[in-house]
Amino acid sequence: MKKLTTQSPSFQAELEALLAFETAQNPEIDRIVADICADVQKRGDAALIEYTNRFDGTSAQTIADLILTQNDLQTAFERLQPEIQTALKTAAARVESYHQRQKMESWTYEDEDGTLLGQQITPLDRVGIYVPGGKAAYPSSVIMNAMPAHVAGVKEIIMVVPTPKGERNDIVLAAAFVAGVTKVFTVGGAQAVAALAYGTEFVPQVDKITGPGNAFVAAAKRRVFGVVGIDMVAGPSEILVIADGTTPADWVAMDLFSQAEHDEIAQAILIGTSQAYLDKVQAAMNRLIETMPRRDIIEASLGNRGAMILAKDLDEACEIANYISPEHLELSVENPQEWAKKIRHAGAIFMGRYTSESLGDYCAGPNHVLPTSRTARFSSPLGTYDFQKRSSLIQVSEQGAQKLGKIASVLAHGESLTAHARAAEFRLKD
Amino acid sequence: MKKLTTQSPSFQAELEALLAFETAQNPEIDRIVADICADVQKRGDAALIEYTNRFDGTSAQTIADLILTQNDLQTAFERLQPEIQTALKTAAARVESYHQRQKMESWTYEDEDGTLLGQQITPLDRVGIYVPGGKAAYPSSVIMNAMPAHVAGVKEIIMVVPTPKGERNDIVLAAAFVAGVTKVFTVGGAQAVAALAYGTEFVPQVDKITGPGNAFVAAAKRRVFGVVGIDMVAGPSEILVIADGTTPADWVAMDLFSQAEHDEIAQAILIGTSQAYLDKVQAAMNRLIETMPRRDIIEASLGNRGAMILAKDLDEACEIANYISPEHLELSVENPQEWAKKIRHAGAIFMGRYTSESLGDYCAGPNHVLPTSRTARFSSPLGTYDFQKRSSLIQVSEQGAQKLGKIASVLAHGESLTAHARAAEFRLKD
Repeated sequence: MKKLTTQSPSFQAELEALLAFETAQNPEIDRIVADICADVQKRGDAALIEYTNRFDGTSAQTIADLILTQNDLQTAFERLQPEIQTALKTAAARVESYHQRQKMESWTYEDEDGTLLGQQITPLDRVGIYVPGGKAAYPSSVIMNAMPAHVAGVKEIIMVVPTPKGERNDIVLAAAFVAGVTKVFTVGGAQAVAALAYGTEFVPQVDKITGPGNAFVAAAKRRVFGVVGIDMVAGPSEILVIADGTTPADWVAMDLFSQAEHDEIAQAILIGTSQAYLDKVQAAMNRLIETMPRRDIIEASLGNRGAMILAKDLDEACEIANYISPEHLELSVENPQEWAKKIRHAGAIFMGRYTSESLGDYCAGPNHVLPTSRTARFSSPLGTYDFQKRSSLIQVSEQGAQKLGKIASVLAHGESLTAHARAAEFRLKD
Repeated sequence: MKKLTTQSPSFQAELEALLAFETAQNPEIDRIVADICADVQKRGDAALIEYTNRFDGTSAQTIADLILTQNDLQTAFERLQPEIQTALKTAAARVESYHQRQKMESWTYEDEDGTLLGQQITPLDRVGIYVPGGKAAYPSSVIMNAMPAHVAGVKEIIMVVPTPKGERNDIVLAAAFVAGVTKVFTVGGAQAVAALAYGTEFVPQVDKITGPGNAFVAAAKRRVFGVVGIDMVAGPSEILVIADGTTPADWVAMDLFSQAEHDEIAQAILIGTSQAYLDKVQAAMNRLIETMPRRDIIEASLGNRGAMILAKDLDEACEIANYISPEHLELSVENPQEWAKKIRHAGAIFMGRYTSESLGDYCAGPNHVLPTSRTARFSSPLGTYDFQKRSSLIQVSEQGAQKLGKIASVLAHGESLTAHARAAEFRLKD
């Protein structure tokens, strides 16, 4: 792990180098994805079935072979051990409860002229949830994507998940069951994204597609953006831990590991205010790494992109955090709520020693889909609000039209838009 | 104008053809924009000044020649006629008042184990507002983009506006003054977008860029998306009027014109429930078109993309509106609030005969930056919320960690993420 100190004159440059990450799009992938999307748009289910059989090693004859109903999902749930059933249901219930509080409601008010103004909130009609298949199949991700849509009141939640060689993941399907998914197509890749975006004979066209995927899925989502909405295209996952030294070093070490084990390009950074504590965490890491099944990934991640930063105090640490704008920020400090007030940019803030990031990943309640790569400067966690939208409401009273009409007329003439002005003037009484 | 009737068996196909609009990106523009962005990123102000002089016909020597302070904006305001000053200030005050109601507030709650959950709301630090120069200079657009940022609490609002041949538009600068803009750079095009996204010696890097622009500006915004946030890339403007026949035909005709006068590719559609009324509006249009300075644009727009649709009743009209998901929807009907409840997708809903779209464009209060091209199915008007963001807050209590830790452990092991499981298990007491 790199060691930085804010006392170094080159600290800012070193920090920028640490955070730099090239997310260049691959033109070859873009070309392949463009072809697949165009083909699915044109030939519908026939193309979808062909690509699925080719890429996933399946042998579907008709689209019916690729559809799972709510009944199938329930059966998958029932096959699980009770312990896993309970964990899924508890996690889903907590996520549901938190996301209920994010639900936007319509509002209106009248101004002094009796003109009504407001905002009408409606859910999206139909959304698509992309869920990766194979090894990186994360049931928690199903809950985190589908539940906010469910809470928002989306009537149809269509999930797509590839089943390489026909292998289905019961926990993923069970998660879809507890999260209120309407229907599942066992397809993936760019072909699944295209089917959701354009619709086929059997796959209904959705209004928005969310969920993580590989480079082909990301390229396909970028391509269909505008035809449908998409969530963010996520970069590598990141954690920043700010520690005042009061949390057991082992706990912090394991929190850093839990980010690093995702991916060789994941980023785990620790900011401490004492060298002695940073050394303790390093010693804990050296000891604990031996026990980690994903040791190779963790070592690569920490070696490539990890760092320990020595700051002079917690105020400085918070300033660095605001620059980094991390996806996950642990404030492993005393009085964390006070320090949280100084944080302007972070996807999620985990406060206090008991709040390991992993509790948030699975079951605390807030969403685990969070802005990465410094985008927390301008974006937010996935939430219920991403599956709702707003329509402005305006009902100008006869009296209001007299006042507003004159203003609009002046400004419209100022922009040389005569019809705009006349439309307002027609509503004037004299 | 095309005439459609829902009684035709080919109605849905005709409607789809009417709405179809190709927004293909131009690879040549993309290439030019890529070069400009890379150059500004590398050479900063020097490149920005060169491109500005070349494209805008200016002769700036240093960046100081391209900066306007709040003092300059105030002076521009003071040069205006009192009537325009009042119109700008009234419009800005109404927009401010509406957008205050959109402001999101932080919240927290505790669950039964004393675990705190919530959402912390923060404004963006610094935003860039792009304002087109030259003929399509719209002061109203300055207010609609800058005011929500101002209301959100954004500390620095940097506006860029090109001044072709050095010509400054006093109303645009005055609008910036009333809308709380911090500083103006008189630059435009892809070079302005790049300067805002990457920062130069003098132009500060922003967190988000909003505002309309030409194809080069749109391509540049797409390119820098991810480095900074952007608003939507807007398509041609649209209006859909649903009329039950109780609004004077002249008024409806002028409302259609006010959309059509924007652009040859703007779209104005009227749905009526009686042929007689549609004929009356057509007659009014035939008469009123004579008086329109932008007659050529209006005729091209209505001829290319306009339509009158005869529906059997208002329920059917609302269904069609939901399919179209228009940017602007006028419900020019009796009891418009009842009908508005049936609208699931629209950027803004203008209710009742006195609510011409143009009142909303300038001064009713809601934003005039609205989702186009059927994207109201999944997106919302520009608002205060676009200049705020959310951070999840989680503080798990010691007791809460006991319950959540067990759930997280089960689910993490189910995903083979051992470090996630261990981080949760470390917080368990036994």
